[in-house]
Amino acid sequence: MAEADPLVIFTPSGKRGRVAPGTKVLDAARRLGVDLDSVCGRRGICSKCQVAPSIGAHPKHGITVTADALSPANEVEHRYDRVRGLKPGRRLGCQAEIRGDVVIDVPPESQVHRQVVRKRAEAHEIVLDPAVKLHYVEVAEPDLDAPSGDLERLLEALRAEMGLDALGMDFALLPGLQKVLRRGGWKVTAAVHTDGVPEVIALWPGYHEGVYGIAVDIGSTTIAGHLTDLVSGAVVASSGLMNPQIRYGEDVMSRVSHTMMNPGGAAELTDSLRVGLTALVADLVEEAGIERSAILDTVFVMNPVMHHLFLGLDPVELGQAPFALASGAAQRLHARELGLDIAPGTRAYVLPLIAGHVGADAAAVALSEQPHGSDDLVLVVDVGTNAEILLGDRSGVLACSSPTGPAFEGAQISAGQRAAPGAIERVKIDPVTGEPRFRVIGSELWSDDPGFAEAIAGTGLTGICGSGIIEVVAEMRMAGIVDAKGLIGTAEETGTPRCVAEGRTQSYVLWQGDDTTPRITVTNNDIRAIQMAKAALYAGARLLMDKRGVDAPDRVVLAGAFGAHISPRHAMVLGMIPDVPLDKVTSAGNAAGTGARIALLNKAARTEIERVVREIDKVETAVEPRFQEHFVAATALPNSADPFARLRAVVPLPEPSFGKAGDGARRRRRRP
Amino acid sequence: MAEADPLVIFTPSGKRGRVAPGTKVLDAARRLGVDLDSVCGRRGICSKCQVAPSIGAHPKHGITVTADALSPANEVEHRYDRVRGLKPGRRLGCQAEIRGDVVIDVPPESQVHRQVVRKRAEAHEIVLDPAVKLHYVEVAEPDLDAPSGDLERLLEALRAEMGLDALGMDFALLPGLQKVLRRGGWKVTAAVHTDGVPEVIALWPGYHEGVYGIAVDIGSTTIAGHLTDLVSGAVVASSGLMNPQIRYGEDVMSRVSHTMMNPGGAAELTDSLRVGLTALVADLVEEAGIERSAILDTVFVMNPVMHHLFLGLDPVELGQAPFALASGAAQRLHARELGLDIAPGTRAYVLPLIAGHVGADAAAVALSEQPHGSDDLVLVVDVGTNAEILLGDRSGVLACSSPTGPAFEGAQISAGQRAAPGAIERVKIDPVTGEPRFRVIGSELWSDDPGFAEAIAGTGLTGICGSGIIEVVAEMRMAGIVDAKGLIGTAEETGTPRCVAEGRTQSYVLWQGDDTTPRITVTNNDIRAIQMAKAALYAGARLLMDKRGVDAPDRVVLAGAFGAHISPRHAMVLGMIPDVPLDKVTSAGNAAGTGARIALLNKAARTEIERVVREIDKVETAVEPRFQEHFVAATALPNSADPFARLRAVVPLPEPSFGKAGDGARRRRRRP
Repeated sequence: MAEADPLVIFTPSGKRGRVAPGTKVLDAARRLGVDLDSVCGRRGICSKCQVAPSIGAHPKHGITVTADALSPANEVEHRYDRVRGLKPGRRLGCQAEIRGDVVIDVPPESQVHRQVVRKRAEAHEIVLDPAVKLHYVEVAEPDLDAPSGDLERLLEALRAEMGLDALGMDFALLPGLQKVLRRGGWKVTAAVHTDGVPEVIALWPGYHEGVYGIAVDIGSTTIAGHLTDLVSGAVVASSGLMNPQIRYGEDVMSRVSHTMMNPGGAAELTDSLRVGLTALVADLVEEAGIERSAILDTVFVMNPVMHHLFLGLDPVELGQAPFALASGAAQRLHARELGLDIAPGTRAYVLPLIAGHVGADAAAVALSEQPHGSDDLVLVVDVGTNAEILLGDRSGVLACSSPTGPAFEGAQISAGQRAAPGAIERVKIDPVTGEPRFRVIGSELWSDDPGFAEAIAGTGLTGICGSGIIEVVAEMRMAGIVDAKGLIGTAEETGTPRCVAEGRTQSYVLWQGDDTTPRITVTNNDIRAIQMAKAALYAGARLLMDKRGVDAPDRVVLAGAFGAHISPRHAMVLGMIPDVPLDKVTSAGNAAGTGARIALLNKAARTEIERVVREIDKVETAVEPRFQEHFVAATALPNSADPFARLRAVVPLPEPSFGKAGDGARRRRRRP
Repeated sequence: MAEADPLVIFTPSGKRGRVAPGTKVLDAARRLGVDLDSVCGRRGICSKCQVAPSIGAHPKHGITVTADALSPANEVEHRYDRVRGLKPGRRLGCQAEIRGDVVIDVPPESQVHRQVVRKRAEAHEIVLDPAVKLHYVEVAEPDLDAPSGDLERLLEALRAEMGLDALGMDFALLPGLQKVLRRGGWKVTAAVHTDGVPEVIALWPGYHEGVYGIAVDIGSTTIAGHLTDLVSGAVVASSGLMNPQIRYGEDVMSRVSHTMMNPGGAAELTDSLRVGLTALVADLVEEAGIERSAILDTVFVMNPVMHHLFLGLDPVELGQAPFALASGAAQRLHARELGLDIAPGTRAYVLPLIAGHVGADAAAVALSEQPHGSDDLVLVVDVGTNAEILLGDRSGVLACSSPTGPAFEGAQISAGQRAAPGAIERVKIDPVTGEPRFRVIGSELWSDDPGFAEAIAGTGLTGICGSGIIEVVAEMRMAGIVDAKGLIGTAEETGTPRCVAEGRTQSYVLWQGDDTTPRITVTNNDIRAIQMAKAALYAGARLLMDKRGVDAPDRVVLAGAFGAHISPRHAMVLGMIPDVPLDKVTSAGNAAGTGARIALLNKAARTEIERVVREIDKVETAVEPRFQEHFVAATALPNSADPFARLRAVVPLPEPSFGKAGDGARRRRRRP
């Protein structure tokens, strides 16, 4: 361009160049590589290309932008403003012409690849680039002199206007194509799916807005779905339901047993899961108040057994060595192939499994937490019935799963229950008196706060949930009520009458119970169950650290819905996780669900996680002799060699040891 | 290779080169680019790589092949010979090693791209390269230390052994994969479909042989299917049935009317067609005695209305200008998407339509007759209810369709009927006496042969079929019983008492009838119907000749099941086709069916015909004013300006003209 041509500077990108006078802002943006959206083929309908010229002096750029730097608003812009309203100062980039030096701001909502900001500061942002996008086009009418099909003219219009090539259309849409084209007066909005062979997967007559996706985390116990706007990236509805397979067994292995013992059992489980997912979709659609047919993409993550049952594959091989997957690769399917009746063209993407025991949920955690992109060595633990464990950094990632069992979820615990109103979730025990205080889900009050009795009249007080059991055991350990081997002391040994004999062992009475609430105790068996679970978790992490040749990671991320509620301090007291500074332990919340949402919003994230999963070094705990050694060693509740020692420095207490097998001095404690 | 290395010469290709001693024949073939098949990964199971060393002196090549030029037969070859038998002199190319100079013959059945010889001398051969091929592989067993899915290991085996890359598997097979692999002891035969994204579409445990395809021509009246062995190219079963849609209307336009008048009518027609096709598949499977699940590919050709109804598309637009197709492009689908339950992975390929009135059947005719590859200008006419007409050569091809109506198929003719036993198919009229002789379908005897009465007691004598009506009208014209305008003369004018008055016009009595047979006459309305039909056909051809700027093609090909039975001489007498020497008129038989079979046996033929169809210059007769002019001009039965003149030179007769509108001299003729 000549020196005299107008200089155009786009913010915030800073991209700049000279363009011929009269160039449309959108064309200038395209030429200069500025990320400016446009859906309607420059017709002034979609307003995705909105920009804001910045009138006035720009000393930084050495120019002054005059009011006539852009052409005056034309009829198309006036019409858009009348019909749908244009913010003051905004122009349509497809209409406004550049006539003089100008600085043009591209607001975030006008960027094609805008970012979705995640809540957690340390989480990387998601670049919005979903597999499904809408395109509005005008299609040539049929012409006797140049006969061609409606479909061929639609695809030609998409090719010419949007630069989409090698494009096809889902065969399921073909029977409806003629009507849509004619009803829209040869103007249609096409949803194009570009993850794989590009295909038109939905059509609306005229101009249409609104395209959605669902990210689903199929857990053994609960299924959670997030209905997400694929244009804004916003979650517009969330819903969860109990996995209907629960009636066939609480944990995945009992469901695998069901399929082995019952002919047709696998199909039964598949059907029940699909029925549940259909209900989930219906809930989401109702909550968001959208058309079901606007949901065009779905992403699923789950453990390997759920994966096989969801895809209609026999999970029996997953119940026995060598734990062979039917397929672990990512699946790109039609939702209808998975029994989900959403829209005819709705697609499904299932994240890859990592190994026979490490699922797509773990892959989704990796996608969310990016251990493969971490500068420091991070241990990511997704705590559930099975714990999935990742350890790595930029130089490589290791993965394994560890059979923690359901104790962390409140199962196998005498007073255990799922996290629900009425469940004890937080516990503190006075290290001197041995007296507990606690909080229940559904109330902000501690049990020694005034009004607590009224509060639990509302919530109930029914048991202890997973995070509560971890806290109470850790608190019992810190208060010297439990020794390193996991034995609860007698009232005499511990100095608190809350320790009572039950059979040959002691229990700790957390709540005495009354007319409306049960007595809630922590038995020595409960302690054992937690010891087993935390030892399995720790042994898995330890095995990966061995493989990596380190004694501890630089930081720990606790993932999983349950991980979100674990107190890192208590987890470390129990020796669930390796010894790192407390401020290096963070909770990632439902990282698997977040990973699913990332794969929904950014198609490149799919190829990324497929590559990462291929490169992950998979460790099978079941065949590693060292896993058993680590497990046995980790059953003890931490002694002076581990974080507990540091904690005891803050809460200085002598180390107790109880019972006949006790090897330390017995200690008596009296109230002061 | 060194000078001292053995020289190997393959016949019939003549490819030659030196290879290191000990090189396997198959490897030498691969290196020298010799077309030698192999399916089983060099395990001596499939015997596709069979070759025959040619022992003795080869003065032409200047070498003498000794008996030890190849290694002695090894245990694998002995085993194969014991179990399945090896022809004398044959060796397995994957086992035999080259040790000295050798001439090796590759028999036709061992060539990957062997040719299927077509019966007609002028037809080009089909190179066998179907979209579906079988591959036998051994799959790695699952390994705890390197976890990966069964599917991923299967695909890896196919990649490694067969050089197939970017390979996927039909999702419908995934649920059965685990069983097939284990049942086959990790040895499986995979059918791989490579027309498009390559995919495994069927699996068998162990080594499997036998893969088939069906080529189907869906006519308005009849549906014909050919079950074809995709390895040998041989048709192993053929079957046909009446198009079940006939109950909704004889011709396609009455079926389109049915869909317009009846809500759900299109779906009803689609269903009836699919039910018919399902029956056809069952017939073919039974006739051939094969497993239905071995049918893995299907190819369909049909006119545009049948196309739309088969694909579940509303055909209404095809009944009115601008005759817009929903889609005319070739379709690559799963057979199950078309309602055909064959095997889960069975594919379907539908040839492209040429235009709103020129179907995939015409495209198949082009594929079979190759006008686009012709050195001379060829006119290809597919005669049916609608005539499809192609005119072209290497420099370009024109196409149109012409609404001939069903007269050529015996409809709209007073004594007309379908071609079936009892129908008159051949007619001769003595030009002097005006007496007819004829033959009926189902008998070799002429009506004046001794024993004819007995013969028709077996076949019946019920009417005249399409080819019969063309012959009788042409013979009547040649015998001077009909004049140029199509009027039948009186008995007095024609000199034969077989001309009788019926109402205001004359009819010609072809058969007097008796107790068991009806009287069969040719009415003047019958003559009119044939005039309209042949005028439409000729006008279409004439229009293409105008566009091309020629007065006649160099040769004419008559296609269509009906085309196979038309006598070229009579067609030319009638002026159905332009004036070319009689020896330049050939019949291509069921060229549409042949084209479908070509697309089944050679996947490159699919892209070829898609390209040809795109490049064809489509002419819409309905909007060409010259078509009407040509039609009117062509209604006359030929006069001295056309081929009839030449024929009259052979059968010298004065030109008659009958009735009040007659402009020629009336002629009386008496028996000599």
